[in-house]
Amino acid sequence: MRFLHTADWHLGRLFHARSLIEDQAHILDQFVELVRAERPDAVLIAGDVYDRAVPPPEAVALLDDVLARIILDAGVPVVLIAGNHDSAQRLEFGARLMQSQGLHVAGCTSATPASVALHDAHGEVRIYALPYAEPAVVRDALGAELATHEAALCAQLDAIRAIHPHGVRSVVVGHAFVVGGAVSESERPLSVGGSGAVAAQAFDGFDLVALGHLHRPQTIDGRLHYAGSLLKYSLSECSHEKSVSMIDLGGDGSVQITPMPLRPLRDLRIVEGELAGLIAAAAAEADDARRDDYVYARLTDTGALLDPMAKLRQVYPNALAVERTVLARAGAAGDAARRLREQSTGELFASFFREVADAELDDGQRVALEQVLAGMAAAQRESA
Amino acid sequence: MRFLHTADWHLGRLFHARSLIEDQAHILDQFVELVRAERPDAVLIAGDVYDRAVPPPEAVALLDDVLARIILDAGVPVVLIAGNHDSAQRLEFGARLMQSQGLHVAGCTSATPASVALHDAHGEVRIYALPYAEPAVVRDALGAELATHEAALCAQLDAIRAIHPHGVRSVVVGHAFVVGGAVSESERPLSVGGSGAVAAQAFDGFDLVALGHLHRPQTIDGRLHYAGSLLKYSLSECSHEKSVSMIDLGGDGSVQITPMPLRPLRDLRIVEGELAGLIAAAAAEADDARRDDYVYARLTDTGALLDPMAKLRQVYPNALAVERTVLARAGAAGDAARRLREQSTGELFASFFREVADAELDDGQRVALEQVLAGMAAAQRESA
Repeated sequence: MRFLHTADWHLGRLFHARSLIEDQAHILDQFVELVRAERPDAVLIAGDVYDRAVPPPEAVALLDDVLARIILDAGVPVVLIAGNHDSAQRLEFGARLMQSQGLHVAGCTSATPASVALHDAHGEVRIYALPYAEPAVVRDALGAELATHEAALCAQLDAIRAIHPHGVRSVVVGHAFVVGGAVSESERPLSVGGSGAVAAQAFDGFDLVALGHLHRPQTIDGRLHYAGSLLKYSLSECSHEKSVSMIDLGGDGSVQITPMPLRPLRDLRIVEGELAGLIAAAAAEADDARRDDYVYARLTDTGALLDPMAKLRQVYPNALAVERTVLARAGAAGDAARRLREQSTGELFASFFREVADAELDDGQRVALEQVLAGMAAAQRESA
Repeated sequence: MRFLHTADWHLGRLFHARSLIEDQAHILDQFVELVRAERPDAVLIAGDVYDRAVPPPEAVALLDDVLARIILDAGVPVVLIAGNHDSAQRLEFGARLMQSQGLHVAGCTSATPASVALHDAHGEVRIYALPYAEPAVVRDALGAELATHEAALCAQLDAIRAIHPHGVRSVVVGHAFVVGGAVSESERPLSVGGSGAVAAQAFDGFDLVALGHLHRPQTIDGRLHYAGSLLKYSLSECSHEKSVSMIDLGGDGSVQITPMPLRPLRDLRIVEGELAGLIAAAAAEADDARRDDYVYARLTDTGALLDPMAKLRQVYPNALAVERTVLARAGAAGDAARRLREQSTGELFASFFREVADAELDDGQRVALEQVLAGMAAAQRESA
């Protein structure tokens, strides 16, 4: 059986105050063409389909259009789960009505996991759609005491194991941070005061785990796979090779993963050097298309520069921002500020606690803090 | 052919800072039961299904649940259009995918009007779903110069007439303010500097026009019908008999309308008198359920009262607000302020213009003003 696996579309995302909707529509056109050409048995979209709980209307219209073309025009079913950026309830609108058409949306967490059964020459494959949920939400759904992301996910996976028929191949579509995965800057931490990470062993027994959350395409233990994000959504992703993944699941449960690169409308890249040199190099650039890239400039000039952004935009019309490396390196203050910005709320609180209490948070305090902050985050996401 | 016609659900509405979602879920349970019992050929929902462009998640979940129960459980198709409170694009998510299941959603305005064909013993009935749209939106869709709501609606209806097959019965589901209709306080004006009203004659030639927008159930010219809102959404609606409408469309195009009242969880009523008297009367009330009503108290006491709201809530736990009639009547200032509050932005601007220019807005100025304010309103609605 063959799946086209993708995740982390983040439709409606703003990057340096620019809407990426045109870039997203462009690359999703290619994705739809790929679906049409390859005709997989199903498309798996592993969460963070939107960038926020209330996406802009054009993001809603784009998802609507892409799903209709995949399902109605290409005739390929879709399994779509909510990630930590999506609103579980909003994403699930119409789910019951769209199911028989081939769109299987899992937004909200329930005690009985949602599943889809597909068949090939080797028999049945059962796909379990496991939307992202805070531990408190899983606790309410399952009626069990679950303090951490790992405990919550393990309880949900146990519930699946309890109903999964023996001898049937199994696929889990999930949105989680598996220990050992490589992170980027644009993934919103799942947890505070901790990473929210889960061990790969939590997924023992499943043939294929199609994951979302981490933006770099990567495979853990041969059968836990992150398709990665649709586009480069942070500077830390400049070196990523973005792709969607064709996954062949053999009759014996073996997994073979083939990256299928898509070509973005504009690349995201960092250029570094003196302003005059960068401008001269850009003007001499043979490939005009590369001048439309999203360019982040690290300027090494040491003297004063008059409106470098305006000058840069004359050669790179989509330049995002400039950074003066001489200023950024000016002393430890800059580094300290950057380190602070990179910390999660939980880490900041932990270091604050260390300062004032002269002690580390113990496990109970850490769990309590995580619950409070997760509750606040959930309330904030749902209050729009 | 038999339709169950309803409109103006305003799911997610806050009234005096109270969420009405529990009341809405309660009355929609009755509505679903009515659909199940009566099995009409279709349910027509004529706009303002949500109270705002970005409704709260619980409103989204409620609509999802109600539609699934009507369509999948009761097997009755639904025609649903966007009103001026809804976001056209958001409401249309999944429309193509849900159509074959029997949910026909028209959110966005297009050049070719959306229609649904149903059949009974007398032949075909064509139902045209005409979502609410600002004149500027209709102008873009139809490529014609259309300055007013009436011109926009007439152009859309002409487009329908041009494709409607001769001899086939016709139904229009629309969201508009028809001249002669009785208004309430909770309808957001469609237009500024004017009423946005359209003449009943605009709908000439159609057998049945199932309307939303006005909150009082009413019929104009025998075949233009407002089902009215689901609940009383303003004090001016206290005297309304809210209902949904069973409409029988005969083989000859004749229309027979039967109101089907639903029982709200809590009524909305105004009580007037001295505080002590009201409390005594409430305490003596035989029907306990009436004490749970949403009560707005007009207090006639002339002396000082200490926290009358807290006292009132001891007998009416869901009391909304108190008004001191002696203060409200204290001079013309109160009346003037109330008159100001009742005016639309356009009316306010027109009187401001009159003050400073010593002249009335001419037609061109009025249209320009209307376009500017409509554009601002649209931008505000879509910017969330």
